[in-house]
Amino acid sequence: MNQVVAETIAQLEGRKYNFSAGPAALPQAVLEQARDEMLDFRGEGASIMEVSHRGKLFMQVAEEAEADLRELLKVPANYKVMFLQGGARGQFAAVPMNLKGEKSGADYINSGHWAQSAIKEAQRYLDVNVAADGKNASFHTMPKQSDWRLSSDAAYLHYTPNETIGGLEFPFIPDSGDVPLVADMSSNILSRPIDVSKFGLIYAGSQKNIGPAGLTVVIVRDDLLNLGQSACPAVLDYNLQASKNSMYNTPPTYGWYLAGLVFKWLKTQGGLEAIDKINDRKSGKLYSAIDGSDFYHNPVDVSWRSRMNIPFTLAKPELDATFLSEADKEGFLYLQGHKAVGGMRASIYNAVPEHHVDALTSFMSEFERKYG
Amino acid sequence: MNQVVAETIAQLEGRKYNFSAGPAALPQAVLEQARDEMLDFRGEGASIMEVSHRGKLFMQVAEEAEADLRELLKVPANYKVMFLQGGARGQFAAVPMNLKGEKSGADYINSGHWAQSAIKEAQRYLDVNVAADGKNASFHTMPKQSDWRLSSDAAYLHYTPNETIGGLEFPFIPDSGDVPLVADMSSNILSRPIDVSKFGLIYAGSQKNIGPAGLTVVIVRDDLLNLGQSACPAVLDYNLQASKNSMYNTPPTYGWYLAGLVFKWLKTQGGLEAIDKINDRKSGKLYSAIDGSDFYHNPVDVSWRSRMNIPFTLAKPELDATFLSEADKEGFLYLQGHKAVGGMRASIYNAVPEHHVDALTSFMSEFERKYG
Repeated sequence: MNQVVAETIAQLEGRKYNFSAGPAALPQAVLEQARDEMLDFRGEGASIMEVSHRGKLFMQVAEEAEADLRELLKVPANYKVMFLQGGARGQFAAVPMNLKGEKSGADYINSGHWAQSAIKEAQRYLDVNVAADGKNASFHTMPKQSDWRLSSDAAYLHYTPNETIGGLEFPFIPDSGDVPLVADMSSNILSRPIDVSKFGLIYAGSQKNIGPAGLTVVIVRDDLLNLGQSACPAVLDYNLQASKNSMYNTPPTYGWYLAGLVFKWLKTQGGLEAIDKINDRKSGKLYSAIDGSDFYHNPVDVSWRSRMNIPFTLAKPELDATFLSEADKEGFLYLQGHKAVGGMRASIYNAVPEHHVDALTSFMSEFERKYG
Repeated sequence: MNQVVAETIAQLEGRKYNFSAGPAALPQAVLEQARDEMLDFRGEGASIMEVSHRGKLFMQVAEEAEADLRELLKVPANYKVMFLQGGARGQFAAVPMNLKGEKSGADYINSGHWAQSAIKEAQRYLDVNVAADGKNASFHTMPKQSDWRLSSDAAYLHYTPNETIGGLEFPFIPDSGDVPLVADMSSNILSRPIDVSKFGLIYAGSQKNIGPAGLTVVIVRDDLLNLGQSACPAVLDYNLQASKNSMYNTPPTYGWYLAGLVFKWLKTQGGLEAIDKINDRKSGKLYSAIDGSDFYHNPVDVSWRSRMNIPFTLAKPELDATFLSEADKEGFLYLQGHKAVGGMRASIYNAVPEHHVDALTSFMSEFERKYG
């Protein structure tokens, strides 16, 4: 399909402002490319989802995606990158099963809904020491790292850099000393440059900043690959999957391909240094709109606020339904807050364009003018 | 996109004859629909892969897919249908972890590569009794059921109705008595009507007859839902996933959607009774071409031959590379046999049109004429 036809169709298709928390908005350019090569990928005469994962064509797609991800995150050579299934919740079990080794327990930081879910699953496999807990502060802030009670003999230290529901994001990378640092980076991976060498293991469900749901990226340091418990299902066994380049079982090939398109799109945006600045601007604009008004409110301590997921409430909660229905009429999707928090939530991952945030803040001003 | 434009583009896109063993060919009509609604699904202003799995829109897609699958397979009401991740290999662990209960072991039928892989993984969780073994017959046939040595106290009887690599397919459903019958139906599900009530559990990786890789369908009888071992990762826990309608974790939403399109396509083909007849014709034509020639050979006992995966060798193996390169020039993809068997293999799942099989048999005749 030529570019003019593609653009005309895209305009006609009436894309809206999508603030879904996940599965979330993808870059429109990625969807257009996926559409255009749906029936015939690179002249193969078949869709990329119709070809063998062990064939030359898919292997090339897989390797390109890994190379681009490594380049974006500057992944050191002594780390394996895997493309697996099972989501972050699968990793909640895989992490303790693979990393427990000879230790009896691990340290976890409880920063909200997802950290708690990780803790609950890990407790089935080892002793969990909650080394820091934001619960008493309603997860609006977290204890200073100097107050964390790390154990002396933990298999690893696990934390959740960004809490999708509470809208809390760590403003620093914890110092875990000699203990491997493990991060569930599902909702803020690729949103800024990070120093991968500070981590033993990073995992992320794909459905926020990577691609469609059903793919899980795992980045693991070589020396952690062979500590596995025997009960770990083979498909979640890091050592086995790393030795087979994530192809011990058939990988989610289409998700892997789409993730590769997203990585290439990120590179055209200028990589993570550039997207970091854009994410600063986008979240800054939305927080300014919230803080500059008595009508909207976000409860999270300013230094712990997420740049990806921004929950906010109305001064008049009885207007929640009106806000959502007027937003819907104006083309804003998925602004309803998570039931655990209430109110509204705007998830503004990498793929949400800055002008969509501008449109949202304009709508919020207008709504306040009418109903505030 | 209107129909005329869609058809014109499809023709220009030069689709080839795809005989991949998996991920495998999908119906062209399914890919066209997926392409056409890639950027805007049902007027939502977003792709179906960009929306929340808990939102009304995806829930509707999910429910339609399940309802259509239930209708196609006539799944009784006392069975749960789940859409999970991890593939058949994930189920190789999940089955023993979920179904072992108070028993110490399970019976397995060894019919080839995939059965052996299931056995190997199950042995990590329970005692496996190989009740029948085709190994001494090179998996070209299997022992009669009256010769199987079932144990008296098995948790279940596991078998692999179709072996993708060896090209062997069970011509009957085994009688497991009161013991739950478990089937890895990855490569022949939906190829014919089956009596689901004879099974305790059916599972299938999606990448042959269901949709793209990364989705796993599990059909399980209610009474088997709550026997779980504590070590089973939550994402593979049948009871938990069934109680959450497969949404304990974010499901592979795009794969689920595509599976739904495949189910609707199957209904337009006349359902499983009609596809059964087509599969008989397609496989009959290819086996006739093989058997009607001294140049081609398939080693499997006639009554045990697969209708989905048809391996064949040339009388002159030194011509293998020539066969594959001439086939490639004529637009035939993925005919190389699995390295464990050698020669060629044509996988002719539901989505491979009958005229593609006709084209292949013509090519084979012509090749024999030139080189035989």
